[in-house]
Amino acid sequence: MLKVAIVGASGYTGVELLRILHCHPEAAVTCVTSEQSSGKAVSEVFPSLRSRYTLILENLEPVRIADKADFIFTALPHKAAMEVVPTFLKLGKRVVDLSADYRLQDAREYGRWYEPHMNPELLKKAVYGLPELRRAKIAGADLVANPGCYPTSIILGLVPLLKKKLIDPAGIIADSKSGVSGAGRSAKVDNLFCEVNDGFKAYAVGGAHRHIPEIEQELSLVAGQRLTISFTPHLVPMDRGILSTIYGQLDKEATTAELLKVFSDFYKGEPFVRVLPEGSFPSTAHVRGSNFCDIGLSVDNRTGRVIVVSAIDNLVKGASGQAVQNMNIMNGFPENLGLESLALVP
Amino acid sequence: MLKVAIVGASGYTGVELLRILHCHPEAAVTCVTSEQSSGKAVSEVFPSLRSRYTLILENLEPVRIADKADFIFTALPHKAAMEVVPTFLKLGKRVVDLSADYRLQDAREYGRWYEPHMNPELLKKAVYGLPELRRAKIAGADLVANPGCYPTSIILGLVPLLKKKLIDPAGIIADSKSGVSGAGRSAKVDNLFCEVNDGFKAYAVGGAHRHIPEIEQELSLVAGQRLTISFTPHLVPMDRGILSTIYGQLDKEATTAELLKVFSDFYKGEPFVRVLPEGSFPSTAHVRGSNFCDIGLSVDNRTGRVIVVSAIDNLVKGASGQAVQNMNIMNGFPENLGLESLALVP
Amino acid sequence: MLKVAIVGASGYTGVELLRILHCHPEAAVTCVTSEQSSGKAVSEVFPSLRSRYTLILENLEPVRIADKADFIFTALPHKAAMEVVPTFLKLGKRVVDLSADYRLQDAREYGRWYEPHMNPELLKKAVYGLPELRRAKIAGADLVANPGCYPTSIILGLVPLLKKKLIDPAGIIADSKSGVSGAGRSAKVDNLFCEVNDGFKAYAVGGAHRHIPEIEQELSLVAGQRLTISFTPHLVPMDRGILSTIYGQLDKEATTAELLKVFSDFYKGEPFVRVLPEGSFPSTAHVRGSNFCDIGLSVDNRTGRVIVVSAIDNLVKGASGQAVQNMNIMNGFPENLGLESLALVP
Amino acid sequence: MLKVAIVGASGYTGVELLRILHCHPEAAVTCVTSEQSSGKAVSEVFPSLRSRYTLILENLEPVRIADKADFIFTALPHKAAMEVVPTFLKLGKRVVDLSADYRLQDAREYGRWYEPHMNPELLKKAVYGLPELRRAKIAGADLVANPGCYPTSIILGLVPLLKKKLIDPAGIIADSKSGVSGAGRSAKVDNLFCEVNDGFKAYAVGGAHRHIPEIEQELSLVAGQRLTISFTPHLVPMDRGILSTIYGQLDKEATTAELLKVFSDFYKGEPFVRVLPEGSFPSTAHVRGSNFCDIGLSVDNRTGRVIVVSAIDNLVKGASGQAVQNMNIMNGFPENLGLESLALVP
Repeated sequence: MLKVAIVGASGYTGVELLRILHCHPEAAVTCVTSEQSSGKAVSEVFPSLRSRYTLILENLEPVRIADKADFIFTALPHKAAMEVVPTFLKLGKRVVDLSADYRLQDAREYGRWYEPHMNPELLKKAVYGLPELRRAKIAGADLVANPGCYPTSIILGLVPLLKKKLIDPAGIIADSKSGVSGAGRSAKVDNLFCEVNDGFKAYAVGGAHRHIPEIEQELSLVAGQRLTISFTPHLVPMDRGILSTIYGQLDKEATTAELLKVFSDFYKGEPFVRVLPEGSFPSTAHVRGSNFCDIGLSVDNRTGRVIVVSAIDNLVKGASGQAVQNMNIMNGFPENLGLESLALVP
Repeated sequence: MLKVAIVGASGYTGVELLRILHCHPEAAVTCVTSEQSSGKAVSEVFPSLRSRYTLILENLEPVRIADKADFIFTALPHKAAMEVVPTFLKLGKRVVDLSADYRLQDAREYGRWYEPHMNPELLKKAVYGLPELRRAKIAGADLVANPGCYPTSIILGLVPLLKKKLIDPAGIIADSKSGVSGAGRSAKVDNLFCEVNDGFKAYAVGGAHRHIPEIEQELSLVAGQRLTISFTPHLVPMDRGILSTIYGQLDKEATTAELLKVFSDFYKGEPFVRVLPEGSFPSTAHVRGSNFCDIGLSVDNRTGRVIVVSAIDNLVKGASGQAVQNMNIMNGFPENLGLESLALVP
Repeated sequence: MLKVAIVGASGYTGVELLRILHCHPEAAVTCVTSEQSSGKAVSEVFPSLRSRYTLILENLEPVRIADKADFIFTALPHKAAMEVVPTFLKLGKRVVDLSADYRLQDAREYGRWYEPHMNPELLKKAVYGLPELRRAKIAGADLVANPGCYPTSIILGLVPLLKKKLIDPAGIIADSKSGVSGAGRSAKVDNLFCEVNDGFKAYAVGGAHRHIPEIEQELSLVAGQRLTISFTPHLVPMDRGILSTIYGQLDKEATTAELLKVFSDFYKGEPFVRVLPEGSFPSTAHVRGSNFCDIGLSVDNRTGRVIVVSAIDNLVKGASGQAVQNMNIMNGFPENLGLESLALVP
Repeated sequence: MLKVAIVGASGYTGVELLRILHCHPEAAVTCVTSEQSSGKAVSEVFPSLRSRYTLILENLEPVRIADKADFIFTALPHKAAMEVVPTFLKLGKRVVDLSADYRLQDAREYGRWYEPHMNPELLKKAVYGLPELRRAKIAGADLVANPGCYPTSIILGLVPLLKKKLIDPAGIIADSKSGVSGAGRSAKVDNLFCEVNDGFKAYAVGGAHRHIPEIEQELSLVAGQRLTISFTPHLVPMDRGILSTIYGQLDKEATTAELLKVFSDFYKGEPFVRVLPEGSFPSTAHVRGSNFCDIGLSVDNRTGRVIVVSAIDNLVKGASGQAVQNMNIMNGFPENLGLESLALVP
């Protein structure tokens, strides 16, 4: 049984890890930490865990956490992660970091979008943990940078097209819509029920969202050339889910069926990517609570564009589920272990 | 591996059975039926099941269904169930019926609230499938009448008080609130998103809801005397969940702590009932997608009443989860098999 | 044109007053105050007001506010109201206070549920502003205590029955459900979208809510005897609306039609109370954004109880709309001026 | 007082017309028609109208309707409108048609997207009723084709840029998101609460939505050249509102401030278009229930694109509110009469 710690367990990705790992046959959570809720039972903070978890949230030094677990999930805000991850690695622990701190290979780029990086040398060691792109490297990694939620949905929706050089790398627009859990669990007026319910809005308009460098890094690697994208995130009055509508300019004519075949071939055998049949398009409702990424697409002949639509649960495939998928790969467990839950419908 | 059929699989309790049974290690769904969606893949009707279920919905005679499965869930409207259940029993199959058709012991009472019963002799054989009350009888039953969603939440919230004769059986009021999935999946203007969202209403006011005789039957058995209750259901703009606020007139003074002790003792060892600590009250959000019934209570000394609040997921403990719990008991499986999922939070 | 100040304009009752008064032909808002948003345009805090309000939120002493307006709405938390209201009255201004500070006639009762009262002598002068009960006194008042949202819905649903002595004053249970705007606009984790959405819960269970003394005061006056009630509030995942389900023990047999007649007679000519026909029950959706209180009822002969269901918009008839109704009465304007908006459906 | 008929009053645009016109000082609704709800009081179908409307829904021939009213709103599905509008015009009535039947100038284009047109000669007489573009023609028109909801939000967001030739007409992408009321009030499984709530999806992907020819017609007229656009609509789990995120390729460098100035100048004096300050972006919540179109924009220098975000209430500025605005213009009333309601927030 793998002993697992969750560092920063009082947020939504923390409770989601606890939910998923409760049904995981090879892992047991032995340590949960939190600064602000230290001393409380984790089931007091999240009553959904009552009678199944008796752990107490602790405010512990990294060294003490490492005493209690062999595998670490850091579910912290950016910056807080890079303050503790090096210690875990030094002590021989393997880490999946759910923050943005190790996703960018270039420390200057990190500095441009976030702040100066505290341990840039680790950026070379860290593996960007998108299993569909980098399964083998993840298996051997000590530090996996778990991808962002928006990037997961957008990269999976574009890789087959860029790999096959079917679209113009300069013409990509990704219009993404997220449920509110993506904004975290801190008390802000903007995220109050009455400010969000029955409304819809864009934010970080005009290329201002911090997930952009991450998306561009990965897509550039796939395309074999530096590319930039237009990315606009939006807030949907729902708890979970990201749907990305992605526009690509086709380099030459293609039918919807041909492009769907490219996707099906590329994702053949993938346990958690579902390419939908022609005429079907994903809904976040169909992946809510599951680790799937659903992808549909259509060619618009009038404009010569392909429109790809991808959907994930931002807390599962977009965060904690993908983190467990990475843990499975890193430990030689079956990749879908603990991740077979189907979406909660309705 | 137990071969299972779901008769009437295109409704919400049907897809919920499929969701739960996907992770059940001892049961495999071998047959799904539907009149209106016959011929379609079940994953076309419910895209959440894609890549995990390849079954086709069929419109089959009971005899043909019995060829394909050893254990039957009937997830049909009332009346439709009693048209097919006798055949399954004759062919030696065991059945959990999710409709109201076998819940009342008295055929006249059934006739009063529904319509004339077609096989009243089966009412004696059927066991009302609330495991917390009747585990042993369920284990030996061929036909289990799966309790209604409202009754599950109300009976579990009252049994300890009535057993111990702590409240006046004549003074019970149950004010219940349900998510919209309780209304089923048929196309009605009243259940459109725009008719339900951001609104709240009562229905069947004044003792008109068909779950009343079922609640009164079970509570009367427990109390050892015939009792009537006031019951008012309401519709909450949410998908899942029932919360019942139950008012009882205390026969003599008691503290909240004393009554909580009565509940804790009564439900000791129960896998799916959680009695909350003093000062805590349940939310449907904490049981969403799980098989738990959460119960909290408080004594109001000013009025001499106890207020019990219970919460379940109407599709899980209130329907398909409890049905699987009954299947587990009937087959000697561990009672919580396939039912350990924690609530999806948020 | 009546010059109006809104003291505490950055909360939900504040913006609601601004919304309503924008279409009021006899009143003009000349001053809006806020501590925390001082210096900001009110349309920056509430973009819905853009291009129609150019007022700047100010942090002003009461004396300065009184320079700018002749009529004052205090939309402050309790305690904050009683710190400023005496000054307004001394300066000859008339006030509608939306807080709880002047609703209770008995300062000791106020002290028991809130804290020591700072100007108990004003409790005698203040008029409890429920126009349906006290129109004439409101007309001549300098200080009107605007009723609470829950009390408005419950009192209007019980007065005709108590006036006619049709129910047992000792047996009243009010089970109320409120939208989230009732919890205000301050940043709390409990009111985050993801904590509220798709869930339902009770709070202040067991007679703990501060609206209880206010309800009991008014009902006792009507009944001519001191009475206590059981009151349980609940939180509905919607923005606006309160629905109260009220249970009364009938003193003697009565039909639904007879009791509806009692209500229709009692509320005859009332501009904002709608008694529904037999078989119809209110929904908060039908009053959302309007100043109506809708009331339906049904007699349950099996239990000898009458169930009254009342619905209001907690921000309109339950707060700012009723405040404007009181302002109209106090100034001799037609009572429905500025309040004729119908509910936003859907 | 203008006597007004609403033909097809049992849908959401019908009840919205009734809501708006209730507070209109120069118009009185004298006739409401419905096929399916004929014989019912309009306040029975829409209880929000209780005590304010006593009209009965009738199933009337156009000639009979024309007896009762001087001004007609046809709130019918496409095709049903063109079956009755010619009669109204022949009888000298003026009409605002809320369907798609008279929006396209080219009958063949109508035939391509809908079906053969029944009275193509009227397409020349009909005026596309977007007041911001065609106020003078609307004033003199007998038949106004009220614009579609998506087109209103997209056209208003692009006209200033195309007029000034600031963007490439070939590179426009409009990604739009709509509340569920846009899907109408007919009973369909897809629009049930449980199918929509807590989910988000795209539909009509790949250039398949019928609003495309209408958008392209109007934008081509403004641009002075034939253009095509990519348009993808999405369904948001909310009642009302459309937000369009529009991507344009800038022909030459420009700053956000410069482009905002272009918009402010263009919409100067418009009563219902609000251009937001730099850094602010619209939310559907801020226009819910109001007739405003809010517009914000940002230039993304990294990609050379401008992103325009526009928001309307699809039932007000996107349908019934704009219809009343057109009625005001056609009758010489002040354009904002009856339309000054601010958004219901929250």
